Amino acid sequence: MGKRVLIVGGVAGGASVAARVRRIDESAEVIMFERGPNVSFSNCCLPYHLSGAVPNSEDLVLMDPVVFKNQYNIEARVLTEVVKINREEKTIDVKELDTGKVYTEKYDKLFLSPGANPILPKSIEGIDGPNVFVVRNVVDIDKLNKFVKSKVKALSNMDVDMAEVNDVAVIGGGFIGVEVAENLKEAGFNVTLVEAMDQIMAPFDYDMAQIFHKEMMDHGVNLILNDGLKKIGPESIELNSGKTVKAQAVVMAIGVRPEVTLAVDAGLELGETGGILVDHNYLTNDKDIYAVGDAIETFHKITHQKTRLPLAGPAQRQARAAADHMYGKPHRNTGVVGSSCVKIFNMNGASTGLTAKAAEKAGFKYDFVYVIPGDKVGLMPGANPMHFKLVYEVPTGKILGAQAIGKGNVDKRIDVIATMVMLGGTLEDLKEMELCYAPPFGTAKDVTNHAALVALNLLNGDFEQVKVDEVRGLVESNAFIVDVREKREFEAGHLVNAVNIPLSEIRGRMDEIPRDVPVYLHCRSSQRSYNALMALNNSGYTNAKNISGSYLGICYFEYFNDQTTDREKIVTKYNFN
Amino acid sequence: MGKRVLIVGGVAGGASVAARVRRIDESAEVIMFERGPNVSFSNCCLPYHLSGAVPNSEDLVLMDPVVFKNQYNIEARVLTEVVKINREEKTIDVKELDTGKVYTEKYDKLFLSPGANPILPKSIEGIDGPNVFVVRNVVDIDKLNKFVKSKVKALSNMDVDMAEVNDVAVIGGGFIGVEVAENLKEAGFNVTLVEAMDQIMAPFDYDMAQIFHKEMMDHGVNLILNDGLKKIGPESIELNSGKTVKAQAVVMAIGVRPEVTLAVDAGLELGETGGILVDHNYLTNDKDIYAVGDAIETFHKITHQKTRLPLAGPAQRQARAAADHMYGKPHRNTGVVGSSCVKIFNMNGASTGLTAKAAEKAGFKYDFVYVIPGDKVGLMPGANPMHFKLVYEVPTGKILGAQAIGKGNVDKRIDVIATMVMLGGTLEDLKEMELCYAPPFGTAKDVTNHAALVALNLLNGDFEQVKVDEVRGLVESNAFIVDVREKREFEAGHLVNAVNIPLSEIRGRMDEIPRDVPVYLHCRSSQRSYNALMALNNSGYTNAKNISGSYLGICYFEYFNDQTTDREKIVTKYNFN
Repeated sequence: MGKRVLIVGGVAGGASVAARVRRIDESAEVIMFERGPNVSFSNCCLPYHLSGAVPNSEDLVLMDPVVFKNQYNIEARVLTEVVKINREEKTIDVKELDTGKVYTEKYDKLFLSPGANPILPKSIEGIDGPNVFVVRNVVDIDKLNKFVKSKVKALSNMDVDMAEVNDVAVIGGGFIGVEVAENLKEAGFNVTLVEAMDQIMAPFDYDMAQIFHKEMMDHGVNLILNDGLKKIGPESIELNSGKTVKAQAVVMAIGVRPEVTLAVDAGLELGETGGILVDHNYLTNDKDIYAVGDAIETFHKITHQKTRLPLAGPAQRQARAAADHMYGKPHRNTGVVGSSCVKIFNMNGASTGLTAKAAEKAGFKYDFVYVIPGDKVGLMPGANPMHFKLVYEVPTGKILGAQAIGKGNVDKRIDVIATMVMLGGTLEDLKEMELCYAPPFGTAKDVTNHAALVALNLLNGDFEQVKVDEVRGLVESNAFIVDVREKREFEAGHLVNAVNIPLSEIRGRMDEIPRDVPVYLHCRSSQRSYNALMALNNSGYTNAKNISGSYLGICYFEYFNDQTTDREKIVTKYNFN
Repeated sequence: MGKRVLIVGGVAGGASVAARVRRIDESAEVIMFERGPNVSFSNCCLPYHLSGAVPNSEDLVLMDPVVFKNQYNIEARVLTEVVKINREEKTIDVKELDTGKVYTEKYDKLFLSPGANPILPKSIEGIDGPNVFVVRNVVDIDKLNKFVKSKVKALSNMDVDMAEVNDVAVIGGGFIGVEVAENLKEAGFNVTLVEAMDQIMAPFDYDMAQIFHKEMMDHGVNLILNDGLKKIGPESIELNSGKTVKAQAVVMAIGVRPEVTLAVDAGLELGETGGILVDHNYLTNDKDIYAVGDAIETFHKITHQKTRLPLAGPAQRQARAAADHMYGKPHRNTGVVGSSCVKIFNMNGASTGLTAKAAEKAGFKYDFVYVIPGDKVGLMPGANPMHFKLVYEVPTGKILGAQAIGKGNVDKRIDVIATMVMLGGTLEDLKEMELCYAPPFGTAKDVTNHAALVALNLLNGDFEQVKVDEVRGLVESNAFIVDVREKREFEAGHLVNAVNIPLSEIRGRMDEIPRDVPVYLHCRSSQRSYNALMALNNSGYTNAKNISGSYLGICYFEYFNDQTTDREKIVTKYNFN
C-alpha cells in the first residue's frame, strides 16, 4: 500500500493536488474532503450563471466524485468537514455534515486547501437576513439566482414579506462584485454597486478605473463610491453616508478572509498577512502538512513582500509544486506577480505586476506612461483605442507592471508584460519585442512596443510630461495649454481654456507659444502632441510638456466625477471618439 | 541648415525613418522618394479591400504628401524613381515618372528602403497578360479589384476577350496568397489556390498546416498542393501536372525578391541571402548609406544565421534604429525571431521562432509537443479547442518557437512565446508563467502553461510519445492502440483498429493491455490518455506511449489528404468536436 494522502478542500488547489499525486503515484491512497456538495467546480464562472451565459448551474461543476473515483481513483467526500488536525497522531477528525457523525482518518501527508471566506461584518445590521448572499460556490449562486428570479411568495422558507425582486445591491467593487453586478444587470435587474474606496477594481490605478466607472454608469449600474454598508432591510439598504438605496437582495463581496481556523487550532503558524505560513515548498511548520491556495500567504516577486493572492492559477501551480515536493521532484517557487483580467460590459481590462500606487506603496522609484494606441490597424473593422499604462522602475527601466483597458484584446498585451515582468525585462527589451501582427489582430508597432518607446523617451529625458490627474489643476490655474488637434476636432469638445494650434500649423505659428511660461501640449491620444513637443524642444523651447493620456484620457478621467458631483467642468464637451 | 536626409521608398521603412529623423532633428531636410503614387499606405491591409472589409481603397493610404509636409515638414515625392546613386558625389539621380525628367539631389545621408518585388517568372507562358496581378500596393489592389468585379467589356484597354470574371486563381500559399484567396472567396468568386510545396503557410509545420488546408476546403477554396503554374490563358491556367483550372484572373503571390538593383549598381554589397548587406547599425558598406526593410538581409536571433524577413514590424524597428544611429543614439540589434499571424476564414493562426522543420534544418537538438487545450473555460460561450505546438531545445528546455491555430485568441498565446523566445526563456519559466485569467478570456492554466507542463514531463522522461504523423503507420501495421475515451465518443468515430478502454475503466481492465508489445494511447486531446499512460507507467508498464495530438489532431492531420486522394482512411469517421 502506498502513501495515505488526505486533502482538505476539493476545489482549485485540492483537486489539483489530488490529480497530480495520482499521476505521480498509482499506489497512493488519495482522499479529498470538501465541506460543500461539489468538488472541482469553476468558482470563476459562478457570476456568469446569473446572466444566463452559463445557463445551467450544474455545468459549473467540472467533475463529480464518481468521475474522480473512476478516472483517477481519487476518493472525494463531499458535505464532509475536517474539524480537527491531530498532528502528533497524524490524524484528522472528520464530520459528516448530513449525519453529524464524526470519525477519524490517518494520514501520511496532509494538504490544506480550505480556501477563503467572504467577509460578512457582524456590525452591519441585517447581515444575517435571508436576502443577503455571497458568491463562493455553486450552492451560493443557485440560492442567489433563485432568490432574485422568483417572487418571494414562492420561496416558502423566506421569512421576509417581499414583493418581486427588482433591485439588487452588490457591496464591493472587486472581481466578484463587479462580475456579479454586470451579470445581474444583464439579467435585467436594477443594480447598485457600492464601494468603500474611491474606485472599483483595485488591480487598476485610479486613472484607469475611471474607464470602468463610466462603463458601469453607461450601462445603468448605480455606482456609489466612497461609501459603505451600514444596515440591510428587506426592501432597502442604508449606507454610512445616510443614503438609502432600494434593494430586495444584497450580495456581499467586500473581500475574502483566508480560512485558517483548522490550521490555527492545530498550532500551524500564520504569516504577517493572516494567511497560513508556508515555506518554499508550501510546507507549513509541520513537515507532514502542506498548504496551498487562497488560505496561504505568498511571496510577491517584485516587491519581495508577503502578500495574499486568491486566484485560481497560482492555486493550481502551488498544488502541483507541493505534490511534486512530496515525491522529491524539484520545482521553482518564483513568487507571484498578480496577473488578472476582467470583462465589464463592453470593456475588457487586464493588469499585471505593480500599479503605480502599488509601486509607490512598496517604495519603488518609478514612473509611468499612459498611451492610447489603436488595438488594431485603424482602417480595419472593429478597431478601437486601447488605454495602456506601463509602470517601470527609474532609472533602470525595469518593467514593474501594466494595465490595459479597451474593447479589444487587452489580455494579450498584458500577458506580454506579465512575461516580461516574470523574466525581468526592461523597456529596451519591450521596445524590440517582435510580436505577431496581421491587420485583424493588432498593429505592426504593437501597443506594448509603443508604450516602451514613449517610456524610453521619457526615461532618456527627451521630453517631459504631466499626468492626467494634474490637468484639472492646470485648467483651473489658467495654464497655457495648446491643443494640437485639427480645428474640427477642437470644436467638438476641448479643454475650457486651451489654445488650438494644429500640428499641421505649429511650425508657422510658434510665435503664439510663449517661451517664458510652462506650456502644456495635448491632442487626442498624445501622438501628435508628442511630435509637436519635439518640434518645440528642437526649436529651443525648454518649458513645454506633453499631457499624458491627452484629450481622450482627460475625458475618461473627469467624466464620472463630473456626472456625479456638481463641480465645474473643465472640458466644453466630452468626446470619447 | 541641417543635415540633408534622402530616403528611397516611402512605405513602412522609409516613412518611419522620415518621421523619426524629424522628431530628433527639427533642422534636417528630409525628402522621401516613392515610385508609386502613395507614401505610407498599409500593405498588410491590401487584401482586405477585396472582400469589402476595407470598403474604400483610399483608406489604405495612411498619410498623403500634404500631411507629411504640414505635420512633419517632410517632403514626400511620389511617382518619382531614384535611378542611380553617385556615391562619390553623394548624390542621387531622380526620375519623375510622369514627365520622364531626371534630376540630381545631394545627400548627407541616404536611406534605402525600396522593399521587395513579387516574383514573376518569365518562364510562365502568359505571365505578362492583362489578367495577371500582383498585390504590392494600392494601385495593384485597385487594379485587381476593378478587374475581377467588372465585366471585361467595360475595361476598354483590355485586349483579351473575356466574359465576366467568376474564377480566380491565386498562385502561392504564403500570407499574401492566403489572404487574397480568403478575401476573394468572401467576395463571392470561385477561388483556386495553387501551392508548389506540400503545404500552405510556411511559418507552420506540416501537421499544423493541415488545419488551414481543411479550413480552405470547408470554405470552398479549390486548394491544389504540390503543383506549379505553367501557363496562363485568358480563361484558364495550366499547371505543371497538366491539370487545367478555370481562371479569368490570376494573382501571383509565390514570393518576393528584395529590390536591390539600385544598391548593386552603386556597388553596395549584398549578403548571402541576396538582400542588401547591413551591419549592426543598418549601415551598408558605404558609411553614408543605410538600408532597412524588406530589401535587407537580417540576422536570426535563434539560428544565428542570415535570413530575410519581409514584415512590417521589423522594418519599422530597423528604420528607427538606423535614424537613431545617424544621431549617435544607441540602439540594440536583437536579431529577428519571425513572429506572425494570419486569419483564414474562421481559423486564426500565429507562429513565432522556429518551427520543428526550421529547428531541424538549423541543426538543433529539439523536440516538440502538440496539445489541444480549450482556449477558454469550456462552459463559457465561444470556447473552442486551440491547437498548440511548442518547439524546444533538448536537453536545455530552451523555448525555440511555437505555433497556434484555432478559432480563438491564438495571437495572445504566441505573443507570450515570442516574448519568452526573445528573452531566452525555458520550459521551466513557461510552466510558472502567471498570465491573466478570467473566464471570458482563457483558462486558469493557460494553453501555454499546459504545453510547458507536457513538454517538461517529456523532457524529464516521465512519459514517451509518438507524433501525429506516425499514426497512419501504426494503424497500417496493426499496432496495439488504446482509445481511452468514453464509449459514446469512440462510437462517433475512431482509429480503425483501436481498442476502446475508457480511462474510467482502465484500472480494472489492465489485463487487456499487453506488457510485451508497444502500446499507444490516445483520447480526444491527449489529456485523459496522459492520465491513463501514467497509470500504466506507474503500474509497471514500460512499453506504452501517448499519441501526441490525439484523435482531434489525427482527424485534422489526415482529413485533407483523405479527401483529396484515394488512399484508405485510417479513421472510421472524422470528428472535429
